[in-house]
Parts: sequence; C-alpha cells; structure tokens
Amino acid sequence: MVTKTVDLRSDTVTKPTELMRAAMANAEVDDDVLGSDPTTFRLEAEVAKIMGKEAGLFVPSGTMGNLISVLVHCDIRGSEVILGDNSHVHIFENGGIATLGGVHPRTVKNNDDGTMNIELIEAAIRNPSWELVYPTTRLICLENSHANSGGRCLSVEYTDKVGELAKKHDLKLHIDGARIFNAATALGVPVDRLVQPADSVSVCLSKGLGAPVGSVIVGSKSFITKARRLRKTLGGGMRQNGVLCAAALVALQENVGKLDEDHKKAKVLAEGLNQIKGLRVNVTAVETNIIFIDIVEGSKITGEKLCKNLGEHGVLVMPETSSRIRIVMHHQISASDVQYTLLCFQQAFAGVPDENGN
Amino acid sequence: MVTKTVDLRSDTVTKPTELMRAAMANAEVDDDVLGSDPTTFRLEAEVAKIMGKEAGLFVPSGTMGNLISVLVHCDIRGSEVILGDNSHVHIFENGGIATLGGVHPRTVKNNDDGTMNIELIEAAIRNPSWELVYPTTRLICLENSHANSGGRCLSVEYTDKVGELAKKHDLKLHIDGARIFNAATALGVPVDRLVQPADSVSVCLSKGLGAPVGSVIVGSKSFITKARRLRKTLGGGMRQNGVLCAAALVALQENVGKLDEDHKKAKVLAEGLNQIKGLRVNVTAVETNIIFIDIVEGSKITGEKLCKNLGEHGVLVMPETSSRIRIVMHHQISASDVQYTLLCFQQAFAGVPDENGN
Amino acid sequence: MVTKTVDLRSDTVTKPTELMRAAMANAEVDDDVLGSDPTTFRLEAEVAKIMGKEAGLFVPSGTMGNLISVLVHCDIRGSEVILGDNSHVHIFENGGIATLGGVHPRTVKNNDDGTMNIELIEAAIRNPSWELVYPTTRLICLENSHANSGGRCLSVEYTDKVGELAKKHDLKLHIDGARIFNAATALGVPVDRLVQPADSVSVCLSKGLGAPVGSVIVGSKSFITKARRLRKTLGGGMRQNGVLCAAALVALQENVGKLDEDHKKAKVLAEGLNQIKGLRVNVTAVETNIIFIDIVEGSKITGEKLCKNLGEHGVLVMPETSSRIRIVMHHQISASDVQYTLLCFQQAFAGVPDENGN
Amino acid sequence: MVTKTVDLRSDTVTKPTELMRAAMANAEVDDDVLGSDPTTFRLEAEVAKIMGKEAGLFVPSGTMGNLISVLVHCDIRGSEVILGDNSHVHIFENGGIATLGGVHPRTVKNNDDGTMNIELIEAAIRNPSWELVYPTTRLICLENSHANSGGRCLSVEYTDKVGELAKKHDLKLHIDGARIFNAATALGVPVDRLVQPADSVSVCLSKGLGAPVGSVIVGSKSFITKARRLRKTLGGGMRQNGVLCAAALVALQENVGKLDEDHKKAKVLAEGLNQIKGLRVNVTAVETNIIFIDIVEGSKITGEKLCKNLGEHGVLVMPETSSRIRIVMHHQISASDVQYTLLCFQQAFAGVPDENGN
Repeated sequence: MVTKTVDLRSDTVTKPTELMRAAMANAEVDDDVLGSDPTTFRLEAEVAKIMGKEAGLFVPSGTMGNLISVLVHCDIRGSEVILGDNSHVHIFENGGIATLGGVHPRTVKNNDDGTMNIELIEAAIRNPSWELVYPTTRLICLENSHANSGGRCLSVEYTDKVGELAKKHDLKLHIDGARIFNAATALGVPVDRLVQPADSVSVCLSKGLGAPVGSVIVGSKSFITKARRLRKTLGGGMRQNGVLCAAALVALQENVGKLDEDHKKAKVLAEGLNQIKGLRVNVTAVETNIIFIDIVEGSKITGEKLCKNLGEHGVLVMPETSSRIRIVMHHQISASDVQYTLLCFQQAFAGVPDENGN
Repeated sequence: MVTKTVDLRSDTVTKPTELMRAAMANAEVDDDVLGSDPTTFRLEAEVAKIMGKEAGLFVPSGTMGNLISVLVHCDIRGSEVILGDNSHVHIFENGGIATLGGVHPRTVKNNDDGTMNIELIEAAIRNPSWELVYPTTRLICLENSHANSGGRCLSVEYTDKVGELAKKHDLKLHIDGARIFNAATALGVPVDRLVQPADSVSVCLSKGLGAPVGSVIVGSKSFITKARRLRKTLGGGMRQNGVLCAAALVALQENVGKLDEDHKKAKVLAEGLNQIKGLRVNVTAVETNIIFIDIVEGSKITGEKLCKNLGEHGVLVMPETSSRIRIVMHHQISASDVQYTLLCFQQAFAGVPDENGN
Repeated sequence: MVTKTVDLRSDTVTKPTELMRAAMANAEVDDDVLGSDPTTFRLEAEVAKIMGKEAGLFVPSGTMGNLISVLVHCDIRGSEVILGDNSHVHIFENGGIATLGGVHPRTVKNNDDGTMNIELIEAAIRNPSWELVYPTTRLICLENSHANSGGRCLSVEYTDKVGELAKKHDLKLHIDGARIFNAATALGVPVDRLVQPADSVSVCLSKGLGAPVGSVIVGSKSFITKARRLRKTLGGGMRQNGVLCAAALVALQENVGKLDEDHKKAKVLAEGLNQIKGLRVNVTAVETNIIFIDIVEGSKITGEKLCKNLGEHGVLVMPETSSRIRIVMHHQISASDVQYTLLCFQQAFAGVPDENGN
Repeated sequence: MVTKTVDLRSDTVTKPTELMRAAMANAEVDDDVLGSDPTTFRLEAEVAKIMGKEAGLFVPSGTMGNLISVLVHCDIRGSEVILGDNSHVHIFENGGIATLGGVHPRTVKNNDDGTMNIELIEAAIRNPSWELVYPTTRLICLENSHANSGGRCLSVEYTDKVGELAKKHDLKLHIDGARIFNAATALGVPVDRLVQPADSVSVCLSKGLGAPVGSVIVGSKSFITKARRLRKTLGGGMRQNGVLCAAALVALQENVGKLDEDHKKAKVLAEGLNQIKGLRVNVTAVETNIIFIDIVEGSKITGEKLCKNLGEHGVLVMPETSSRIRIVMHHQISASDVQYTLLCFQQAFAGVPDENGN
C-alpha cells in the first residue's frame, strides 16, 4: 500500500502553495482581454522588470510563449529559425512553429551541454538575396537551462556570443527560458544579465517556481504588442486572468530563492543513484534540477518496469527511453523524500541480477 | 465623481463570486498536461454530460474552443467551412482558422435572427470530385445565441434542419455555444436537446456563467482525443488547471439558473432605452442578454461621446459603430443598476437637441 | 457521326497557331531559373510595358499569378484580402490563398456587373489597431472582365475609385486580369490606363490570346523580386521557359486585335440563342466573350442533357448548373461555327415541349 | 574574346534538341486542365510505365514535384517528414513544405554518400499516441542520385531497406528522383527496380534528359488524383501542356541512353582537374554527372575569382562556397569541351602560386 507520494515526473507537477491559494481567492481582477485586469498587468510588469525588458505578456503555457515568440519574430512568409536539434521547441512542441506558423526550422546539433557551436550556427544562416531557393533566416533560438541535455546551463559568455552573431546578421534572438531562473541560480548571475542579448524570453512560472499555470514572455513594447494580438488569435487571451497572475506573483516571491536548494537535492539524489549497481548518472552534468538516469546495459530491468515498480511505492518518475529515466527536482520534494526515493531505487535493484547474472 | 460602477461592456467582465474564489483556494489539483488533474476531469465530464456528448476538453477561451473545433473537423489540407458572414468565428477571431489552420472560410449571409437560409447553406457545399478547383466542404458552423444579431436564438427546429443537411452531405456540424445556455434558457428547451445534432460544441463558462476563465468543447471521444493534441500544439495545455475548473464547476451550479433573470433585466433596460428620444432599440429582438442601441439619425450625440458621458457616471458600455452601442447584461447587474443606467442615459440625452433642433 | 468540332467550353481550349508553333521551334532559350533565358525576359518586359508597370514575371497559370500576387501583398501573418464573393480567386482557385498562404478572405457581394459597392468595400476594411480580434486588411482584389458575371467589364472610373479607396487606407490593389485585354477592348480604353491604379495585375496569355501556356504578372520591381522567389517556392520556376514565352509573344501580336471580333461573334450567338424557345440569354450583359444561357423553367431538357446532345454534334459546351450553360467565344471559332452552333441548339430544342406541354 | 561556351553550371541548362523543337511544333494538344490533352496523357503514362507505377502527373518543375508529393503524403495537419539534412528538399526548395504546407521537417544526417543511417531514421520516427507533444511521422524522403553529396547513388539494397522500415512503421516513402536515371545508369539496374519500394517518385525531365521544362511524379492512382488537385491549387495546371510533354517524350527516347557517356566525361574531367596543383577532386566519389572541386587551402585563388576567370574563356561554372566549385556534366558537352575546360582550369592556375609561395 502506498502511504506516501514523491512526484518526480516533472517540476510542472508542483501544486499551488497556501499563499498562492490565498492570493487566488483574493485577487483583484477584471477582464484582461479588454485590457483592464490590474493583477495581470502587475505580473507582466514585474517579470519584465526582473528580466530587464520593456514589457511582458502572460500566456497559458511555455509552449504558447515559444510559439508566439517565434511567430512574431518570423511574421513574414518564408522565414527560417535556427534552433537546436535537441531543443524543446523542435522536439516537444508538436512542430507547432511549422504546422501552425509555416516557419521553417533549421536545426543545428546540440552539444551535450546544450550549446550549439557558434560556427555551425553562422554556417546555417541564409538569405534569399544569395539564392533564390533559400528561406530567410530571421531568428536564433536558445534554451536555458537546456532540458534535453539534463538541465545544463548556457553561460553569459556563450549567450553573449550568440547575441553578437545575431546582431551581426540582423537576426533576432529568442531564449526559451522555461527554466531560466534555474540557470541564473546555478550560474550565480543576475537573470537579467543572462538574457541581456535576447530580443525575447519565454519565462515559465509553473515549473520550478510552482505557480499553477502560466508563462510570461518579455521583450520590447512593439514585440509585446504583436504578441498580444497573436495570443488572441491562438485563443490564449483569458478573462479574469488575474486569479492566475496573483498566484504567479506569489511564486516569484516564494520560490525563486528555493531553486538553489532544489539543485542541491538533485545533486544528492544523483550521487546516491549513481552508487546503485545497474544505474549510471553523470553527476557532474547535474547542474540544475534535472537528472537523467541510465540503466546500464545488461541489466535485466527496463525503464518501464522500473518506473512501475517505483510507482507502487509512491515514487512517480517517467521513462525517457527504454533505458533512461528522467527525474526533475522541485520545491515540494523534501530531503527525506530524496532519501525515500533512493531507498525505493535500491530496493528495486536489490533483486535484479547484473549483466553477468550475479 | 463616480461612486458606482455598472459594467455593461460584456458578460465577460463578470468577476468570480465568493464561492468561486473559495473553490479555487481549495481545489484539488494535479498536472493536467500529464493527464492527472482530477478537477479538470470532473468539469470536462460534467459539461459533456450536460451537453449530451461523450467527452469534454477545457480550453483557455472560446476563441481557442472554436479554433480547435474547426481545425479538428478540417484536419485535411484543402478543407472549407461554411459559416455566417456575421458570425463570431468569421469576424472576431482574427481569421485564425485561415491564418493558422489554412481552412478556407465560405460565408453565407446571416439573417437578422442569426440564421442562414438552409438553401443557401446547401448551395455553398462543394466537393472536389465535382470540380478540380474546389476545396472540400467539411464543416458547417452555427452560433447560438448569435452575438452579432443581438443575442438571438436558433431554435431546435432550425438546428435540427442544419444537422440533417450536414448528415446528408457527410459534413460535420459545430456550434459556437459561447452563450448556448442563454439560448436554451430563452427557448425553454434542454440544452442537450438544442445541441443534439452537433458534432461539437464550444461552451463558454466565463461569459454569462461568470467563471473567471475558460470554455469547454464537447464531442465524441475521438474528436476530443484529437482536440487535446491540438490544444497542446496551440499552447493551451495548462498545468494545475483545476483551480480554474473548480471555479467553473461553481459557475455551472450558481449561474445557469440566473440567466433567465438576466434576460428579463435586459428586456426592462431595452424597453426603457427605447423610450428615450434619440435612441432606438428593437425590443422584440432582445431575446437574451444583448441589447443593440441605435442613436437615431440627426441626433447630435455620437456613440463615442455617449459612451464617454456614461463612463463619467460609472456606466461602462462600448460603441459598436459611430451610431450603435452594445450592452450585455449579466448576473452582477442588479435591478437598481438597470434603473441607474436608464437614468444616466436619460440625463445624457436631456440636453441633446433632436433632429429638428428641438 | 461528328464531322466538325466547335469547342466552346472555354477560351483556354485555343490551340497554338502555326506562327506560335514556329516560334516555339525556333525560340532562343536558356535556363530561366538561373536568370538567363532571353525570350522569357523579352516577354516579361513586353507585357510590363503594355500594362504600364515596371516589371513582369511569367508564371505557368493564372491561378499561380493570382496566388503569388495575393501572397506577396499579404506576406505578413494575419493579413486579410477583400474580394468578390463571386470572384474567380474565391470560387475557382481551391481556396489556395487560405490553404497555402493563410490569408483570410473577406468577401464582399459581387453585383451582377462584377463590381462590388465601394461603400461595402470600405466597410469591410479592418485594422488590428482598432480591435485586437481583427486581421489586417492589406489588399483589395478586382477581376476584369469578371468571369462569373458573364465577362462583364469594370470601367476605368470604377477601377480608379477602388484605387483611390485602396490608397486612402494604405492597401494594395490587385487585378485578376485573366481577360483584361477583353475588358480593355470592350471598353475601348488603353489597357495600361485601365489597370493604372493597380499595384499588380495577373494577365493571362492562354485564354483569348491563344498562347499554349502561361500568364504574366506585372507590378513594381520590388513586387516582382518577391514574386520571383515565391514562384520558386511554389515550384513555378521553369528552365527553358523561352519556348512558351516565344509562343506568348506571338499571341500578343496575333490575337489582341481579334478580341473585338470574338465579342461580336459572342453577341451574334447570344442573340440567336435568345430567340430559341426554352432558352434565355441576357444579351445586353454579353459585353465580351462569355455567354450564360439559361434553360427556362418548365423546359423538359436539363443542362446536362443539352450538353450531351450538343456534344454528339461536335458542339462542346459545359453546364454551370442544372439549368445554366456557359459558352466562351475565342479566335478559333468562325462565323460559320457560330451558325452551326445555333443550328445544333435549335435542333436540340425542336422536339422539346415547352412548359405547357406544347 | 570568347569564341566558345561550355556551360557546366548545371544539367538544367541543356537546350532543346532539333527533335524536341520539331516535336513541340507538331504536338497534338488540347486543354490539360480540362483533362483532354493527349500528349500529356501519353507522357504521364510512359513515365509511370518506366517507373513501374500506376500513374503519372506532369508538373512544371522538380520543386513542385517534391512539394506536391510531400504535401499529399502529409495531407493531415500535424504531419512530420524525415529527410536528409543535406537533401535538396530541405536545403534548396525554400522550405516550401513548411512555409506553404505546414509540414514539420525532421532531419537526419546525410552521410557522405547521400544515405542516412537506417537506425537514425528509425529513431526519428514519432507517433502522437506515444506523446501528446509529438507530430506524426508520415513520410520518409530519399534523394537518388543525391545532389549535395556530389551525385552519389543510393543502391537497390539501401532503398529496399528504407522501404521495409517505412512499411514496418506504416509510413510512405518518397524518392526525389531529379536524377534517378543517372542513378539507375550508374548502378546498372533497371530504374523501376530501383524505385520499387517508393510510394512516389519525382522524375525530372529537364536535367540530364534535356527536355526544356518539367518533371513527372508517379505513384498510385489515388496518389495522383490527390496530386492533380494540389497541382491546381499551386497553380501548376497548364493548358496546352502537350507542347512541353512532346519535347519530354523525345527526351526519354534520345537522352536516357546518353547518361552513361555523361558519367564517363565527368570522370575524365574529374581526373584531369585532380591533377591540377591547387585543386582537389574526390574522383571515386564522382559516380554520376556531378563534380565537386575543392580549391586547396593556401591557394591564392578564390572560388569566385576562379569562376570569373573561367567565364572569360566561356567556361561557365558556379561556386558552391568560397573554396568549392560545382560542375554538372550533360549531353551537350562534347569530349573536346571537356579538354577545353581542363585547359582553361590549367591556365587559370598556371600563374597562381601554391601555399608555399612557389
């Protein structure tokens, strides 16, 4: 019988805290589509200020934040975006930028640390004045921290270099900042400095920050004006939005400061898991709150089976592939949850013979 | 000095009630994108049941509800939808079905009562097996009640006839039911009977029902499966959605029964306004909660000026055109608000000379 | 046994003349996609000059000419075009502007003479700075002569007025000039004067002019530069294009002057057909080379049956609807063909009892 | 003074032969859009037969052939195609499948020989039943011969394996066969055997085969029915098409047999160029009619300068990059042209000091 639940499927599973619930209950609201919701305006201004940009716009999800950003920067038919072949936008957003927006994705290989080589980015840039058969590159997308590389961080130096490249070629730079606060925390840099070269950033509030719903995209005023219209087209305009934004304002207060703790808990868990025979974790790669756990070849347990076994003990995790599991740490996992999780993993492997049958 | 606000801009301006706020604060939630939010499931099942359909899906707005519905029914390239030339989807949703979905809109004239003539609909149906140069009609859209005709209602008989036509030609039928409860209330018919011939309905919860955010689309299970994926593509998947759905569940309990009262208040206001020299309201056309007020020709006041004047007394209304104002009644307008509104209108016209200069 | 063929299905059925065939056989050609085909350049320059525009571009069809023109003028996501509800672009081009280009079509009623009321056009213009929910109108499309009204012509005055309206609202004006030479001929005005207010014109060479393949779109140099790239995207770039353009150059020489004769033959035929009991032709509406023939109600013959009967005698015509037939006159129909056609129609009706059974 | 022109820019520069010109002049034609052009039907049937497929469709270009094929196979919104990161469709067709068709391109690395590793293709296949955030893979594209790898050929064995993979996952397989006859010739296999596993093939007639204009796509009857409608939407439907198809029928007779000779001439030229100090050609990689010539590092001449120098002597070539030139052999280059070209290259390098300044 399960007596405890440790939900490590994602940091999106975080539930609203008491303060957030109170904030929702007491939010001052009006109709945000008619442009009159004060709490939404407050959140948008607050996130814009934190990010060092002119303006912000609340959207229902990070996916919509990225979709709107790419489509606004690529609002002319025949636009191309350069992005990582392992980026969230390319892999996990249904191909929406092409499907809905007709934007052509040109991928550049993501290195293990989430970067793309600057020379490869530059080589991918194209301009129809060179060739009648080329789309026009209008945008470069980065993702920081980079989920599919295990939450690794792009440095200020790297981001600045990509920003310079973008400027040189008259391109825009968008940062998918679903976990930008995790990156800034891990790097120990102010978040506005980290996104300084970006023309737009999509900032998620419902992942590590724990708000129930929503992201804010930030950029110039003219960018946000266009984004607001496109949000309406997509159906992302909401009425008494303020209830969600009130919770998100609490999230900014309450939880940004807890991310450092999340990273430490992730490290502890990663190190513990790496001790288990049959598992392998690249502990140094655990820079933020994501852990990739590989089941070593020859082990008789599969990712799926392992997840099921853990689930029976209340530890919820998700398989990436048949031999890889992803865990995401967040503020609602306690130190004792970490130990309990380790224990459950150990027990799951206790009876599993190794590759030599021992 | 304004001491009172009577917000008649739209029924979307309704603010969450105490019960809704409490429900949000206490909602049982989980990650709805991962498919585990119990309150969202409860709302979706509830609305589906009320509408007599298999399944439901919560979406952030009525616009997204219509967009998803049209795109799911028209998921093959080269699809055409038949819809009213004065319908919300065609006029007030940024042309999203074409812009984002590549669906070709074929309009049929909306009559004053919001219907389209059945023979005109049938004449508009096209099939590429007849002509190489035709798109394929795959969908008919109705809107009930019909906003741009002043909230008039499509009867069961009319809707059934359109449903039969759709079946005959192997087309789908979608109903934009932003105010479907208003229509059912005004017609005195069960709402599930009213939408019976529809393959999908978009039901708004944040208009007359007063929920802070959201609509639910309903249809067959396979329709909803496709809709769920497309919602993710659009960025309409939200995490702890349950906070919004909890409020919406309250809205269904609290406010469906109040719509009849809204319609009565609208009638009283319409009749009163029609008495004012310089204004004209087609009182019989006020079947639900929307009132179109025409400033008679020759009157020296414009819609814009009138709105401004009223606003200074706390009565918020919006001009449709230079000579037409739209008012939408809702459950947060009291009988005395109606009288106050009438008074403000009367005062605004008191000093305005008529068309003969008197 | 058929001994003669009179092909009146369309003016697109015209076959290359001896001079055109010789021109194709002797055309100086190179690779037009690489920008080196001299004959293509010659044709493009020639049509541009005739139309009084800066530059031209050869395209495989009128449909592509219109598609490219609309998409170039509406190259920003969220664009809307105002066009006739009975226009070729809206009805007979597969909805391509929406399906492929995401351009939202806003239709205005076409009058019987192919015009749209200027006030209705103006009322349809929209701008998102007015409303968050509006697409941006960027283009007005006219069609001259207007096929679906029976080839009627838009006058210089009318076209100028629409041009002024477009300028006033900072919109572009495109003319679908599939039969623009027919219109100029019928109106007795220089063709460049007729299209003067247009930013682009699509001119068909393979209809009344008799070239085997192709249209030329004309406009400013910057318009044509964008059009050239889009033509490549659509797959309309062709290699030794010069063979087609050589024939088209002959068509311009040979056949523009014959259009007046085509119109006269159409008039003769229309008058003759209108004499036949059971048929009705609005003879005054036959301004150019298109004739709509209505089978009067009560007649026992259907359009389909009549077409079949005529076909057995070598007279090829196409039904528009069950009670309407369309005939298109062209330079390869002789005066005696016209008489033969009349005879065949008369014979087809000889044995058909009228509505009173006589 | 240039007395001779050797045009090696592409095999698309081939000019119609005397027989082709005669065929155009004498072609039996009718209106192909109305479905009555006999010569077009003859060509389509002929190419379909050669390729071992049910039906064919003439299109104005290879780009349109690929665009139509991808869009027909991916006709449901949310489709993904797997294709080479160095393929013609991905790099040289303006991103049209995304821009116009909303199809999401998922690239797999092209090896030096134009193949993609089978396991990488399989790993890229996705299905939304696995993840809400995935598009649906519906198509794999191959290109044979593969232009950007220097015209290398995919073997029957490789193609069969990809075909099996496609079947296993219920995907379609399209082959961009712009130079499929070159591949079959070089491999010494019947062309229908080579494309046997493909659901569609785009076959170019205006490259090595020397027809002035056009490609034919082949596939099942139902594929071609859909393709025909989409061709109309794109504006690729042409009227007296037969003039082009007559020339293409000659091309099939005249020039397929000459491709082997083209490959031999390419080999001779490649070997000769590789002897020139300062140039490097991977001679073994010259399997068909394309030669990539690298200017060795340290050489003081750039690709652009070299092209200009050669052009002054009538040898037309195009730079790929600053240090790479592409040459394409075809039937209108004689053995003596090859020798003259070699001579011009030698002269261009005679005075150029090597990397050591000698």
